[in-house]
Amino acid sequence: MDAEYIAALDIGGTKMAAMVASREGPLARISQPSIKSGSPRSIPEQGLALIDAVCAKAGVPASAVHALGVASAGPFIREAGQVALCSPNLCGGLAQGSDLPNDWTSIPIEQVLRERFAEVAIDNDCVSALVAERSFGAVIDEPDCAYVTWSTGVGFGLCVDGRILRGKNGNAGHAGHLLMSETDDAVCGCGNRGDLEALVSGRNIGNRAGMPASELFNHAKAGDPQARAVAERAAQWFGRGLYNVATTLDTRVFVIGGSVWLHHGDWLAPLVQKEIDSRFPALTSGVRILPAALGRLVADVGALALAIPGDWVPAWRQTRPWEKLAST
Amino acid sequence: MDAEYIAALDIGGTKMAAMVASREGPLARISQPSIKSGSPRSIPEQGLALIDAVCAKAGVPASAVHALGVASAGPFIREAGQVALCSPNLCGGLAQGSDLPNDWTSIPIEQVLRERFAEVAIDNDCVSALVAERSFGAVIDEPDCAYVTWSTGVGFGLCVDGRILRGKNGNAGHAGHLLMSETDDAVCGCGNRGDLEALVSGRNIGNRAGMPASELFNHAKAGDPQARAVAERAAQWFGRGLYNVATTLDTRVFVIGGSVWLHHGDWLAPLVQKEIDSRFPALTSGVRILPAALGRLVADVGALALAIPGDWVPAWRQTRPWEKLAST
Repeated sequence: MDAEYIAALDIGGTKMAAMVASREGPLARISQPSIKSGSPRSIPEQGLALIDAVCAKAGVPASAVHALGVASAGPFIREAGQVALCSPNLCGGLAQGSDLPNDWTSIPIEQVLRERFAEVAIDNDCVSALVAERSFGAVIDEPDCAYVTWSTGVGFGLCVDGRILRGKNGNAGHAGHLLMSETDDAVCGCGNRGDLEALVSGRNIGNRAGMPASELFNHAKAGDPQARAVAERAAQWFGRGLYNVATTLDTRVFVIGGSVWLHHGDWLAPLVQKEIDSRFPALTSGVRILPAALGRLVADVGALALAIPGDWVPAWRQTRPWEKLAST
Repeated sequence: MDAEYIAALDIGGTKMAAMVASREGPLARISQPSIKSGSPRSIPEQGLALIDAVCAKAGVPASAVHALGVASAGPFIREAGQVALCSPNLCGGLAQGSDLPNDWTSIPIEQVLRERFAEVAIDNDCVSALVAERSFGAVIDEPDCAYVTWSTGVGFGLCVDGRILRGKNGNAGHAGHLLMSETDDAVCGCGNRGDLEALVSGRNIGNRAGMPASELFNHAKAGDPQARAVAERAAQWFGRGLYNVATTLDTRVFVIGGSVWLHHGDWLAPLVQKEIDSRFPALTSGVRILPAALGRLVADVGALALAIPGDWVPAWRQTRPWEKLAST
């Protein structure tokens, strides 16, 4: 049966978005703050209600939706073979002292969504961003590449030999938690000291600098020597992180997104590239970094890209119908 | 056409071995010191001569060999789409001050071997060890696993979602060069400071301890407090290295070989496992370490496993015919 419509959910700690699309492109998008209370089923049930609402907005019968793509904050676990979320941004029962108004330790996302949809593809938001960039963005058909978000946190989606990596529970790509330093003054939300995210994430740079990361980078670009030293050090650490992934996976291209890169990537790129190029030529020769082509839309397009039928892809590459999502 | 015979080469910086096998198992094996002079073709030509010699020893016509597996020291590059070796242990032209009697910068291994064999599979020696352990050893049919050698150096073979990773030039798995520390007193052969190999390889532990690594571990096991501190620190670093790979790839099982693990793995294993278990439970829960089941034969069986027809595998699993290689 031809897929008439596909739907997509983008589930984050702060908000959830739903989209519906036809062969011609996305038809509608709505978003809401993510529910934080009730039973652990509340999140996927909110997703189903949002899909109904976005279908109504688009004038599409919800029963005509044949496949669902879900880009979600991780990490994931498997419960009875199905993907469940155990994201610390959603599940209040995972950490002592959480300020979330629930005691969830996991969210049965796949189980609930499959009660309604037979075809459900769920991936980490960085993995779905990579699928989007490989389908429509900066690395179309590139077999050995990674998507990296440099934002509040740091995460990766990984592709080797033309195949997206998932791993035992779908958590491949958590290389933001690579241990890279013995420093004690960079602590990650996961508890690690000196992992990549602790060293460079917007949140942690901000904490150490005593100002928002964006402000720090602006001071650095304006020539303030102290801010510049901190920002250059962050670029160096980020470059070492990319080198670490390249040496592990023999990656050719890194596509970089996230708020830090969106705003400061032009300034950071030469510093990051230099750090990669400075070591082990047999592994790093020719490794390139590119900005994410889908920009702010990479999460939404990523969720759609998880569900899109292969025969829709060539037309979307031509017409770039996701661009109208920017105005929703 | 059914494969009557397969051949295999194990190419290292010190020696080269050739084997020939039938459906029933390996028939013969010979080895020689690797050639270090002449043209860059000398190495693959030595391989072809060794295959002829091992076929003669086994009474097999060399023309009846239909597939060749090659396990080789890396790293690799691609020249006109074909695998070439640029191993610093073989190519004297790669580093200033090399004591090798040649000026090779690469070795056209695939090009020369394909002049004679249509079916040639070339992989890094850690990748071929992983193929062997997945075919006949500790991780049969395990989709998310890695082989790790802890020896003079440190290297990995990686498998995610049931597929062995190669990367753009076949160099996936060089995670021995993961940057993990800012220390200045651990320098790797690649020039990195503070990468995993610099921190724990037998060569580097030996250099820092002023005695062979095996002696240091023996002192540690005998209770010498200074040696014990150094050995425990090495185990901790190695565990952090495995954690780094697990967090990047969502690995379930690490199979560990190499001379350090062969001799001291029983003593090291609990320390390494503890280091993995001490962080990020959503990613590390259930991650196990196992000793390589093929022991000292993993390199030879690995080279054969790259070429073995799938329909030979079940019988080899039953009869374990590689065990007679131990006596050659």
